[in-house]
Amino acid sequence: MSTTYNQVYARAVGNPTAVDVDALCVLVGGILDNLDLGEKRFTVDPGNIQTRTATTQTLLQHSQLGQKPVLDMWNFLCLRKEFESHKDGVAMQSGHRQGVYFLCILLTLEISIYQVVNMVVAKSWTMVRHFEGAPKLDDFKLIEKELPPLKDGEVLLESEFLSVDPYMRPYSKNALKGGDVIMGSQVARVIESKNPDFPVGGYYVAYAGWTTHFISDAKGLNALPSNWPDHLPKSLALGAVGMPGLTAYFGLLEICKPKEGDVVLVNCAAGAVGSLVGQIAKIKGCKAVGSAGTDDKLTFLKEIGFDEVFNYKTVSSLAEALKKASPEGYDCYFENVGGKFADAAMQQMNDFGRIAVCGAISMYNDSVPSTGPYIQPYILFKQLCMEGFLVTRWQKQFPEGQKQLLQWVTEGKLKFHEHITNGFENMPAGFIGMLNGENTGKAIIKV
Amino acid sequence: MSTTYNQVYARAVGNPTAVDVDALCVLVGGILDNLDLGEKRFTVDPGNIQTRTATTQTLLQHSQLGQKPVLDMWNFLCLRKEFESHKDGVAMQSGHRQGVYFLCILLTLEISIYQVVNMVVAKSWTMVRHFEGAPKLDDFKLIEKELPPLKDGEVLLESEFLSVDPYMRPYSKNALKGGDVIMGSQVARVIESKNPDFPVGGYYVAYAGWTTHFISDAKGLNALPSNWPDHLPKSLALGAVGMPGLTAYFGLLEICKPKEGDVVLVNCAAGAVGSLVGQIAKIKGCKAVGSAGTDDKLTFLKEIGFDEVFNYKTVSSLAEALKKASPEGYDCYFENVGGKFADAAMQQMNDFGRIAVCGAISMYNDSVPSTGPYIQPYILFKQLCMEGFLVTRWQKQFPEGQKQLLQWVTEGKLKFHEHITNGFENMPAGFIGMLNGENTGKAIIKV
Repeated sequence: MSTTYNQVYARAVGNPTAVDVDALCVLVGGILDNLDLGEKRFTVDPGNIQTRTATTQTLLQHSQLGQKPVLDMWNFLCLRKEFESHKDGVAMQSGHRQGVYFLCILLTLEISIYQVVNMVVAKSWTMVRHFEGAPKLDDFKLIEKELPPLKDGEVLLESEFLSVDPYMRPYSKNALKGGDVIMGSQVARVIESKNPDFPVGGYYVAYAGWTTHFISDAKGLNALPSNWPDHLPKSLALGAVGMPGLTAYFGLLEICKPKEGDVVLVNCAAGAVGSLVGQIAKIKGCKAVGSAGTDDKLTFLKEIGFDEVFNYKTVSSLAEALKKASPEGYDCYFENVGGKFADAAMQQMNDFGRIAVCGAISMYNDSVPSTGPYIQPYILFKQLCMEGFLVTRWQKQFPEGQKQLLQWVTEGKLKFHEHITNGFENMPAGFIGMLNGENTGKAIIKV
Repeated sequence: MSTTYNQVYARAVGNPTAVDVDALCVLVGGILDNLDLGEKRFTVDPGNIQTRTATTQTLLQHSQLGQKPVLDMWNFLCLRKEFESHKDGVAMQSGHRQGVYFLCILLTLEISIYQVVNMVVAKSWTMVRHFEGAPKLDDFKLIEKELPPLKDGEVLLESEFLSVDPYMRPYSKNALKGGDVIMGSQVARVIESKNPDFPVGGYYVAYAGWTTHFISDAKGLNALPSNWPDHLPKSLALGAVGMPGLTAYFGLLEICKPKEGDVVLVNCAAGAVGSLVGQIAKIKGCKAVGSAGTDDKLTFLKEIGFDEVFNYKTVSSLAEALKKASPEGYDCYFENVGGKFADAAMQQMNDFGRIAVCGAISMYNDSVPSTGPYIQPYILFKQLCMEGFLVTRWQKQFPEGQKQLLQWVTEGKLKFHEHITNGFENMPAGFIGMLNGENTGKAIIKV
């Protein structure tokens, strides 16, 4: 049994011993001793003490309905006596609300375990309203919410690294409404478990949104590969060995289908995905051409092996820059940008070129759809194949992809760079910065 | 040996008999008797008569170089005597130039055959200048040109049916310069052959441009399937059992990859390709939705089995028409039009939809590239695959495709309609009409 003041775990399986119950009482007492109830100062009214059975029934009912038992302090005090005298089955919860702890006690006669569980408060970033144009800081609101007790099969996780990715901008439009927690993935650690397959301490990648804590039925949890080297940051599971890595890996190999000697073009080349696309293209014997928006990024791209790079913001003509970088045209085009860049790139494609549409970051902030020359004539006369993809379509192949990516990273064939924003409270700023291209490599929020 | 005045074939294999040579002389004499040399009235200058040997050498040299022997009438008269005395090997040619016949005689001592061959005049439609906007009648010019004598391995063909297709409009831009004969295919009959594998009388599909006659080295000739039913018009080799049929067949099956129960959208549905796409979709168990520009065409589409049709010119909203025709969206989209139609259709595609870009007829007359909303967001978020194609990529599979198409046509599963324009002189009008959508089914020029 371990106890900390802000994060409480007390568990025993089987019939609790007197020692367990004593410890529980110490814990409860300790918390009580520090109570500051503020406005909600309690009064004890012994006349209201209910019978043990009735209270138990009421609490069980609340519990079965999945509602947080509505107990105030007199409930606690009333039940304390019951608790002390009935040692054959007790569950306890401590809840944090408005800065003070409330304690709720569930008496259960049916089960022979007891728990003292911290009612964890999850901090989450919500979207106040749909973004208009570029997201602004006041479009985000931090909320706090007590998490309910775990049910059998569930686990409680704490986010350590969170991912901010371009897709969140366009996806927010249809997937979210005002007040919703923003979607996203994280590397999180299990801090409580009612699922033996997901023990406390395990690290998992989850898709739980912008939140510090969350309860999972464990179905959406993906364990880090068992051979994850100790020296490798676990945040890579959100980057080179995670979704962006898999995006680059499958998007390039399955849609662009690069052959040795092909010329591969990628924009946002210094981004989480682009930087990997270029390196995988090189591993596959291709020429890699990348564009980025700062000279520092170009330097980074050359360091990680790109053959040709250019700054799309400073070249006088995208068409000329593309021609110069590859006078022989392009066989593969890994598209992250769209818009004017795409207009220019379509013209430089070789016959039978393959275009993997992974993103269209230049268009995500458009309030009205932007327009450009129709691309169908290029598609037609050059017999191009343009395919959009979400990496989830290869979900069944993720393990093999992740294995390959981890191997390349471990061997040093795939270099990575992370742009870390510290502090969960800075997550909106990290997101906005990523959309503005402030990151080189993967943008990560470290809680 | 057969002779006609405007089209002369005189052939004997082996040593010519006196009868052959007499017939030849009659022929030559007959032509001479009708000579009207106009400005080029010849004078006989007996002093210029060369020796037989020298003349033979000269003529053989011309012949070997593949040049048309430059002979005028005194050559003929000089050689006539030689011809009459040397019956052991003679070749003759008659040529039509500026409305009169010239006769050229080649004495050959080396070969034991003789030929009298009409110097066929090919009529061809050339492009005067690059089209600007919609092609106009005065963008075309009819030219006439004598064809040279056949070399070994070559065949002379006469077009019976010619094809006018939308692709000619955009292809003219890069593939042709002013004065060039316009590209295109035809069903043509061999009228002279120096290639035993391609005998006189055989019908072939060729890609010889807008021309009545042409010489082929036989490499580009595709025989009609040997099991071609007699009752089937040979023009179908330019339509349902030809390039448009193969375009519909491979484009739909290989790129749209329709599964049973899929909804297939095709525009220009009453056109040569579209009308087949819808029918093949039905054969494959799909729902076929087609758009066309007249109510007569809609009637035709319903007759050939389309499930839903609409007139894109008269509906108040393309989006609504598309939704109404298939509230469940579209899995496959066979694109012939582009532009605004495509804008609307992209929005109605289902996730993982396949778009085969076969044409973009609405955009072919654009002088400057037209613009519209970028389609990348649809491609991306619906994970669409859009691929352009030219049917030639499946050239190796043409026999199997043609076999299947012919079978479907013969079984009545694939109905066809032809829009015949009579007269080679009307070919530009037929082409312009086809671009304007005047045709239901395949637009064909009958010479």
